[in-house]
Amino acid sequence: MGKKYVYLFSEGNASMRDLLGGKGANLAEMTSIGLPVPRGFTVTTEACTRYYKDGQIIAEEIQNQIFEALTKTEAIVGKKFGDPSNPLLVSVRSGARVSMPGMMDTILNLGLNDEVTEGLARLTNNPRFAYDSYRRFIQMFSDVVMGIEKEKFDKIWDEAKERKGVQQDTELDADDLKEIVKKFKELYKAEKGTDFPQDPKEQLMEAVKAVFRSWDNPRAIVYRRLNNIPGDWGTAVNVQEMVFGNMGDDSGTGVAFTRNPSTGEKKLYGEFLMNAQGEDVVAGIRTPHSIDLLKDINPEVYDQFVKIADILEKHYKDMQDMEFTIEKGKLFMLQTRNGKRTAAAAIKIAVDLVNEGMVTKEEALMKIDPNQLNSLLHPTFDPAALKKAKPIAKGLPASPGAATGKIYFNAKDAANAVNNGETHVILVRLETSPEDIEGMNAAQGILTGRGGMTSHAAVVARGMGKCCVAGCSEIKIDTEAKYFIDKNGNMYKEGDWISLDGSTGNVYGERLPTIAPELTGYFATIMAWADEVRKLRVRTNADTPRDAAQALKFGAEGIGLCRTEHMFFEADRISIFREMIVADTTEKRKAALDKLLPLQRQDFEDIFTAMNGYPVTIRLLDPPLHEFMPETEEDIIALADKICITYEELKAIIKRQREINPMMGVRGVRLAIIYPEIAEMQTRAIIEAAINVNKKGIKVVPEIMVPLVCEVKELKYIKDIIMNTADKIIKEAGIELKYLVGTMMEIPRAVLTADEIAEEADFFSFGTNDLTQMTYGLSRDDAGRILDEYYQKKIFEFDPTERLDQKGVGKLIKMGVELGRSSKQNLKLGVCGEHGGDPYSIEFFHKIGLDYVSCSPYRVPIARLAAAQAAIMNKSKN
Amino acid sequence: MGKKYVYLFSEGNASMRDLLGGKGANLAEMTSIGLPVPRGFTVTTEACTRYYKDGQIIAEEIQNQIFEALTKTEAIVGKKFGDPSNPLLVSVRSGARVSMPGMMDTILNLGLNDEVTEGLARLTNNPRFAYDSYRRFIQMFSDVVMGIEKEKFDKIWDEAKERKGVQQDTELDADDLKEIVKKFKELYKAEKGTDFPQDPKEQLMEAVKAVFRSWDNPRAIVYRRLNNIPGDWGTAVNVQEMVFGNMGDDSGTGVAFTRNPSTGEKKLYGEFLMNAQGEDVVAGIRTPHSIDLLKDINPEVYDQFVKIADILEKHYKDMQDMEFTIEKGKLFMLQTRNGKRTAAAAIKIAVDLVNEGMVTKEEALMKIDPNQLNSLLHPTFDPAALKKAKPIAKGLPASPGAATGKIYFNAKDAANAVNNGETHVILVRLETSPEDIEGMNAAQGILTGRGGMTSHAAVVARGMGKCCVAGCSEIKIDTEAKYFIDKNGNMYKEGDWISLDGSTGNVYGERLPTIAPELTGYFATIMAWADEVRKLRVRTNADTPRDAAQALKFGAEGIGLCRTEHMFFEADRISIFREMIVADTTEKRKAALDKLLPLQRQDFEDIFTAMNGYPVTIRLLDPPLHEFMPETEEDIIALADKICITYEELKAIIKRQREINPMMGVRGVRLAIIYPEIAEMQTRAIIEAAINVNKKGIKVVPEIMVPLVCEVKELKYIKDIIMNTADKIIKEAGIELKYLVGTMMEIPRAVLTADEIAEEADFFSFGTNDLTQMTYGLSRDDAGRILDEYYQKKIFEFDPTERLDQKGVGKLIKMGVELGRSSKQNLKLGVCGEHGGDPYSIEFFHKIGLDYVSCSPYRVPIARLAAAQAAIMNKSKN
Repeated sequence: MGKKYVYLFSEGNASMRDLLGGKGANLAEMTSIGLPVPRGFTVTTEACTRYYKDGQIIAEEIQNQIFEALTKTEAIVGKKFGDPSNPLLVSVRSGARVSMPGMMDTILNLGLNDEVTEGLARLTNNPRFAYDSYRRFIQMFSDVVMGIEKEKFDKIWDEAKERKGVQQDTELDADDLKEIVKKFKELYKAEKGTDFPQDPKEQLMEAVKAVFRSWDNPRAIVYRRLNNIPGDWGTAVNVQEMVFGNMGDDSGTGVAFTRNPSTGEKKLYGEFLMNAQGEDVVAGIRTPHSIDLLKDINPEVYDQFVKIADILEKHYKDMQDMEFTIEKGKLFMLQTRNGKRTAAAAIKIAVDLVNEGMVTKEEALMKIDPNQLNSLLHPTFDPAALKKAKPIAKGLPASPGAATGKIYFNAKDAANAVNNGETHVILVRLETSPEDIEGMNAAQGILTGRGGMTSHAAVVARGMGKCCVAGCSEIKIDTEAKYFIDKNGNMYKEGDWISLDGSTGNVYGERLPTIAPELTGYFATIMAWADEVRKLRVRTNADTPRDAAQALKFGAEGIGLCRTEHMFFEADRISIFREMIVADTTEKRKAALDKLLPLQRQDFEDIFTAMNGYPVTIRLLDPPLHEFMPETEEDIIALADKICITYEELKAIIKRQREINPMMGVRGVRLAIIYPEIAEMQTRAIIEAAINVNKKGIKVVPEIMVPLVCEVKELKYIKDIIMNTADKIIKEAGIELKYLVGTMMEIPRAVLTADEIAEEADFFSFGTNDLTQMTYGLSRDDAGRILDEYYQKKIFEFDPTERLDQKGVGKLIKMGVELGRSSKQNLKLGVCGEHGGDPYSIEFFHKIGLDYVSCSPYRVPIARLAAAQAAIMNKSKN
Repeated sequence: MGKKYVYLFSEGNASMRDLLGGKGANLAEMTSIGLPVPRGFTVTTEACTRYYKDGQIIAEEIQNQIFEALTKTEAIVGKKFGDPSNPLLVSVRSGARVSMPGMMDTILNLGLNDEVTEGLARLTNNPRFAYDSYRRFIQMFSDVVMGIEKEKFDKIWDEAKERKGVQQDTELDADDLKEIVKKFKELYKAEKGTDFPQDPKEQLMEAVKAVFRSWDNPRAIVYRRLNNIPGDWGTAVNVQEMVFGNMGDDSGTGVAFTRNPSTGEKKLYGEFLMNAQGEDVVAGIRTPHSIDLLKDINPEVYDQFVKIADILEKHYKDMQDMEFTIEKGKLFMLQTRNGKRTAAAAIKIAVDLVNEGMVTKEEALMKIDPNQLNSLLHPTFDPAALKKAKPIAKGLPASPGAATGKIYFNAKDAANAVNNGETHVILVRLETSPEDIEGMNAAQGILTGRGGMTSHAAVVARGMGKCCVAGCSEIKIDTEAKYFIDKNGNMYKEGDWISLDGSTGNVYGERLPTIAPELTGYFATIMAWADEVRKLRVRTNADTPRDAAQALKFGAEGIGLCRTEHMFFEADRISIFREMIVADTTEKRKAALDKLLPLQRQDFEDIFTAMNGYPVTIRLLDPPLHEFMPETEEDIIALADKICITYEELKAIIKRQREINPMMGVRGVRLAIIYPEIAEMQTRAIIEAAINVNKKGIKVVPEIMVPLVCEVKELKYIKDIIMNTADKIIKEAGIELKYLVGTMMEIPRAVLTADEIAEEADFFSFGTNDLTQMTYGLSRDDAGRILDEYYQKKIFEFDPTERLDQKGVGKLIKMGVELGRSSKQNLKLGVCGEHGGDPYSIEFFHKIGLDYVSCSPYRVPIARLAAAQAAIMNKSKN
């Protein structure tokens, strides 16, 4: 007996998600608890990985198991695949371990051919339905399986309607459809050189292969990267008896949520269309009705559906997203899954479920995607401004939040704008499709002209926590010419500012001011629960009192990284700083530093005051000096003038400071060793500031951090300078002041010799940005071209500068933690690179026993929740 | 009882070298075997490290132990320190674990003050001697201990001679010397503000401190770096009763070797001066006599010395370098140590000692410094040219070899010239001093106007294996004006070419052609012994058939690194290669590659043929493409013209390819992944070349090496391309051909994930150059400024790009070896970075179990010997 690659729905259950995929496992589960599910079977994810391993071939043993399962299904439902007198038709749908909506492929109505269609027409006495199904199948199969562009079929379709002079699809009759099927088949033959396949088994096997292939289509790869889904999971394939929502006005299809996915309100929420197939609802082609309306159309079915929805929610202990079809008045459940939801809905539902006694606090915390909180943390529109502003159009409030930005009319332009430094971008589309995913990711908000609350744009935007106004039919969009016209006839072109209110659906033709979010209510409850559970402390990276105050509001427990170089970029300081850089004697350098001292001291006083006693880690000057040099001719002339040297001399100095690989050049502690007077000045500023705020009653213990250490003697050298300077000032002030001296761990050698370095350090802060660059030998500045190619060729699954590479960089960090603690038990350990705010990475940092992570202010709540989830997951593993 | 910091000579022995230093241990040993050694004691190296640890203070317990030992010495010799009626005078001399000639400080005649000098004059009835000793002491103490420039004293001395109208020092009488002493003391007071210290104990303690301090003087730091001596060893201090070679014509002092240190000839070899102190001989101020002459002057002493020399050589089983003093006809031994020698002498002595039955082959191998072999491997002058050439001067043949180069007149200029790319430099000095060490290191050869065969220049040059002509009084050197005049009156200015024959002492005023060395006789014997013992295989880095042939002569057992990019730099290829780089379609790129294919194939055929069946590892294209781009305007215009694009287009392409950190950018395997057609072409060239030479009967197994891998999937991707290409060609050729595919391990992440990478690799070659850069986060191109500062501040003791950093990079490599072998037992492991030719690093590579090292052709014999020594050391440890 070989491996089992195919399971009937009756053979599986919800716990088999890894093997059967989410959809397959839930279909099995619903079958087992007796819900009305069309029968069928699942080809496992292992069959998918085997398919790739075998060189994109479905092994014979798998084919045999598929046909066996098909035979069993035929027996159960009493129909036969390919039998015109009693045909079994199936849907073939993808289903990975985790839901990847719209990313992979689906084929409906499979099993139809010329003969079967005729048989179906006779059997149902409904030739229109039969040929409508056949034309759908031909188009879908040709598109998804054979790669013939959908638009070519649409053209035939549109021409038929035009010829007949009708508007609605439903106005075409059986003969029209027959004619269209003929033309579709001709098109297929012209494109492929062969007839449209008439053998249902061949159709099935090609469709399964197409689903497997779709696991690796470019949009799925992008989606996986954005959602941390490993490339080797593969997708399952669900083969299920077709039920038909397009059998007439007593048939229909819809999707619904057990609670409102936008607000979390406990009330059935959904949409349906009569005489339609599922794709019609999801694709947003016809605007569907609210689920409530079903009560009027078919109260029995409505009641049955409400009951099933309740059963499913209780069963899965979470809000469910369900698909159903009504075939001639009979209800069938096609899918259930935990529903995607907005961040606001997620926290409300989580708190409600606990209050309803359905889940524990810890279970509730696990239901929220930390990254999603992002949308709650960003500003909303200033109500005053909002009151005065007049909407230029109104659409559906598809995903809440406030977005303001410059408009772009395709995904690529939007992504490019962001790559070129644009910070506020709105993507405007007629409707979005999975191909648009990168542009949606880049944009602050999304505006579409068509589609409902469950359209692609709406679902994806909610998942991303991005503001979205969908189905805004009041504006006329021309994506080719790159403009839209509002209801008043005004034109908005690429680059113009608009604002979107995702909570009301309002669109504004201007840039609206925003205000900070309120972090109370459900949000505060969730955060409090998270804080009860988590072990990791959460600090913030902040260089200004404003950032520090913002982070405190978000619950930061200190500053993990205060970058002093950012303070030098301000206009009034840069010229003094430049004076320091080009000084050709220590005396001149010191003179410039003396001018900088009071400014730096004031910076630190302000930050210490803002942080009100929380620990503050200040990093000494880090980047290469030449980054501060003037670049334009005017700036060079001005600086030369100011510091009384010639233009040529200054040019020569700038040239001398240029480095071939600045990332690995004179920076960090290397700067401090060459110019100890810089470290001296910064120490003085820090310690004097601490003394001053201490006098005002704010107890601060400054943590001075030395960057880019690769050898313990570097740290020792600078530590001696810091301590000599600090101790003298403290002694003169005649007060008690504690301070710590520690180091960034951001160079592989530092981590490899962490035991030695720990002897001179009070704390380590892993600088995962540089550590990742050095460990990969890959410059972040130059990686763009490489990463694109690497994703395409499946060499990298994610950008290691965004998500910690556990296998290499993580292994190194773990080693550093163990070595460091081996020589200093009470060494304080943290992380201050980008990864400190990434939930996936935070779980790792928890597991290896760090004391804290530090991240940007807006990611602090995300990190708090992620840290709680890490603690919960880790507990359950022990 | 505290730690023992001071040992009388009678308390130690030769095995206590780490504690007593080489000099101290040997003085103790000589004392214990009954040789005539002036008595004294040694302050240990531990006292020195304690001195630094305590903040450059000699702890009271150490001071007390010194004074106790002094008291005991007084009792033994029957004299008293500071007692004018019977004074004990001492020398205070440094002595580290390994000999560092001239690097640290010495003070002679310590214990003299005004009163004691008068007493000594009375006691010896020789006021001239007493005041000569006093003036020497004042000058030496002032210079070495108090930092008053020696030249200021020399000036007083020269003025005195001038005033009296005499040439020789010996023509000054006691009264002159008394007057000079007075002036010396006045100078001291003027400089220091206090009287010259009259308390002998104070003098002693200051002198000990000065010796400790001298451990860290800049020249000692440089010497340690060049000779791999750890900075934390410290120096011992030897305090020894003075005996006087300057007591008159029956007194003298000298140095001698038991065998000729230039040739290895078994015959006493040395120099002495009568009525002089040791410094006079070593400093090269007066030209000394050959040791043979001593037989005529004092046959008893000569015989006694010959006997002692024989005892010492047998005792230490090695050629000895001895210092002696004759005081009023009585012989005293002041020092013995294993003598420094030329490479030629080293191998002859090693072979002779084995033949004389004195040592085993393995002991003999351990006596040769592998780095020294360098001098035997480099060319000598072409005899034909030499016959025609007329010397412009003749000096002493102080260190053999042939050197030709441009002349520089101070160490700094010589070092700068080399830093600026000069490959042939001759340092010309009146005499060298330890300050010149970096310049001597940079130069191919050294020419001095003064000093004998044991002068500083001669000793150091022999140690370095560098050609040196010393004491060439026929030329007149003006180092200030930077020229010399030869015996015919011709002037040679900075930058002019000369040639030196270190074996004859001839100087030529032109650039002489050189020929390759003969590697037979003693050299071949030693190499054969080394090959018997070593475990590591030795390969070479070679990109041309010429390099390959040279390396084979030196005993290379294969090519470990053949860099294909070097082949593209040739004039006829660079333009085709550039055509490939700027191609904007794959087709154009392939067209250019097709033109390169036959050229590359021919390269590989030639190399395979030269290596005659030895393994050849070929690395696929590695450096960033933009390195190949034209830089000058003319070149850009020419290229644009050639490939039919506009100048502006080409400029844009060049700009696009520029990277911020090219070392961590698009290079190595990343290039191959973006442009697989390059890897394809190179594979084709390699495999077709192998097939062609196989047909001629040369069995070659090409090893294809993929550079810059950081992730196993990169290697897998390219390996698939290589194998598909290669297998197809081999199948078409219808022959059997084996080949290997492996990878450079040069990125930290690759090493951290070596277990995964090993699954796809037949071999690893650790690329220690890049691995060191990445592990340190330090770009070799930009490190210059940092390294200088780091040596000065004692943060780095050596350049990690030259000598493997075992603590960090070595730890990582060890991890890679273990991980790699854990998943593939028979994985072939080698090293192909610079470190593969460094003896210190080779020992490490042996210990961690690599299969081979690969180094430049001229370092192959060095690596063979170093590998043998590693095997011997490792065996004796087991």
